[in-house]
Amino acid sequence: MNAHAPHPLDRATRLVRNADDSLTGRTDAAYANMVGPFGGVTAATMLNAALAHPKRLGDPVALTVNYAGPLADGEFRIDAAPVRTNRSTQHWSITARQGEGVTTTATAVFALRRQTWSSTETGFPQVPPAASLQRMQAGALAEWTKRYDMRFVRGGWPDGTKPDQALDSVSTLWIRDDPPRPLDFLSLAAICDSFFPRVMIRRPRWVPAGTVSLTTYFHADTKRLAAEGERPVLGTARASHFGLGYHDQSAEIWSEDGALLATSHQIVYYKE
Amino acid sequence: MNAHAPHPLDRATRLVRNADDSLTGRTDAAYANMVGPFGGVTAATMLNAALAHPKRLGDPVALTVNYAGPLADGEFRIDAAPVRTNRSTQHWSITARQGEGVTTTATAVFALRRQTWSSTETGFPQVPPAASLQRMQAGALAEWTKRYDMRFVRGGWPDGTKPDQALDSVSTLWIRDDPPRPLDFLSLAAICDSFFPRVMIRRPRWVPAGTVSLTTYFHADTKRLAAEGERPVLGTARASHFGLGYHDQSAEIWSEDGALLATSHQIVYYKE
Repeated sequence: MNAHAPHPLDRATRLVRNADDSLTGRTDAAYANMVGPFGGVTAATMLNAALAHPKRLGDPVALTVNYAGPLADGEFRIDAAPVRTNRSTQHWSITARQGEGVTTTATAVFALRRQTWSSTETGFPQVPPAASLQRMQAGALAEWTKRYDMRFVRGGWPDGTKPDQALDSVSTLWIRDDPPRPLDFLSLAAICDSFFPRVMIRRPRWVPAGTVSLTTYFHADTKRLAAEGERPVLGTARASHFGLGYHDQSAEIWSEDGALLATSHQIVYYKE
Repeated sequence: MNAHAPHPLDRATRLVRNADDSLTGRTDAAYANMVGPFGGVTAATMLNAALAHPKRLGDPVALTVNYAGPLADGEFRIDAAPVRTNRSTQHWSITARQGEGVTTTATAVFALRRQTWSSTETGFPQVPPAASLQRMQAGALAEWTKRYDMRFVRGGWPDGTKPDQALDSVSTLWIRDDPPRPLDFLSLAAICDSFFPRVMIRRPRWVPAGTVSLTTYFHADTKRLAAEGERPVLGTARASHFGLGYHDQSAEIWSEDGALLATSHQIVYYKE
C-alpha cells in the first residue's frame, strides 16, 4: 500500500459536500458484498455524514441504519440534518438516495459524554488470544471479508464439516481492519455489522439473508477508542429468535483488555 | 369504565388525519410520566402513524424511536411517510413536532410475514404463574404505571429494603394493560418501554434517567398477537453496560405459553 494513500475504509466512507449541503459518496470495490456494498461500510458512511458535519455535537451514542433498498455500485447522495440539538445531546436524521430512490435511512444520537458511575454487567468471553488463532481464509467469500483479519473462536463460516444443524447461533471472533487502522467510530460501526447472518451459523449452511435494520449503541468515547490503536477487538453475536422470515442478532464488541466498546442489534431477512 | 368508551391506550395513541396528510395527536393524562407522557405510549403513537396509514404494507418488524426533546402535555403533530415500498417490505420515516420543535423521530420497517423455518434460541424464564404473584402497588409512582398490572418475579421498583447495590440489573415480571385490552402491536410497543430504567434497579434507588433511543423487533404477526387476547405477557430486561452517562437495556417479551413476541433494546441517559 502506498503510505500516502488513504486506508480503504476511509476511501469507502468518504463524503464530498455539495453546494446544497448534501453529500456525495461512492461505493468502493474493496468492500463489495455479493450484491452491492458491505452493509457495515454503508452504516459507517451514514454515521460519517453526521460525524463530519460542522454542527456536530459530541460523540455518537446510538445509530440506527435501515437498509431500505439495494445500493447500486457507484455514486449516492446523503442528506444529513441535526433535527434537534439540546445542551448535551443531538439527534440526526440521515437519508441516502440514488436517483429518486431512497436506499438507506438512519437516525443517530450524539452526546457530550462525561464520567459517571460505571459498571459492566455482561462478562468478557473466555477466549484464547488473537495471536494463538488462525486467520479465516476468505477464499471465495465476498470481497469485503478480505478487508478484515478474522480469527474465529467459534461459529465461523459454515464449511460443510459441521453437523446438519448447529446447537446455537453464537459466533465469537477476534477482528481488526486489514490493513490495520486505528479504531474509531467509523471502523467500530462497520465491525458491528461484520458478523455473518446468524441463520447461516445456526443451520449451518448458506441461506439467502440480509440485514434490514441495524442499531448500535456506543459505550466508548473518542478518547477511549483512540487508545485502542490498531489492536484487534473481540466480537460475539447470537440470535434469540428465527421465524416468519426474520431473525434478530445481538452482538458485543470488546476491547482486548476487556472494555465493552459497543453493543449492536439487528433484524435480518432470511429465506428458508 | 363506560363500555362504549375507548380503552385509555387507544385514546392516548389516537391520531386525527389533517388536510395536509399530517396527523394530530394529544397526550393523555392517563399515561402521564413524571414529566411529559410515558415513552412507551409515545412509541406506540409513532408506530400508529404508520399502522393507520392507508398505504401501509404488512406488519411491523422493526421500530426505532428517538426521544429528541421533551413532549409537553397537549397536542402534537406527526408526519409519517413510507419512504420506500418494496415487494414485501416497507420503510417509514416518522417525525413528531410541537410548534417548530422536533420532539420525537422514528423509523419503522413493515413486512409481509410468511411461514419459514423457525427456532427460539433464548429460553423462556423459569417463573411462577402471574396469578400466584402479588400486583405491584403503584402508590406514589407516575400515573402511567397504574395503567399496567405488573407482577414482579424479581427486580421491582427499589423500595429501600434491598442492599445498597443489587448484584445485577435484571427485572422479570408479568404485565398486562389495566383495564385489560387485547394485545396488539400498539400495546406490545408500549410494554417494551415499561421497564423501569435499569440504573434504578442496579443501584438500587431512584436516579435521574430517561430513554433516549428505543428499538423493538417484533417476532409475532397480527394473527399471533390477536391470539393472545387479554392474557398477561412475561417481560424480562437487563443492562449490559453503564458508563459515560448512558446505559443500554435489552428486553424480551414472551407470551404466557412461551412464544417470544418481541425483543427490545434501548439506550438510557442517567445522572449518577
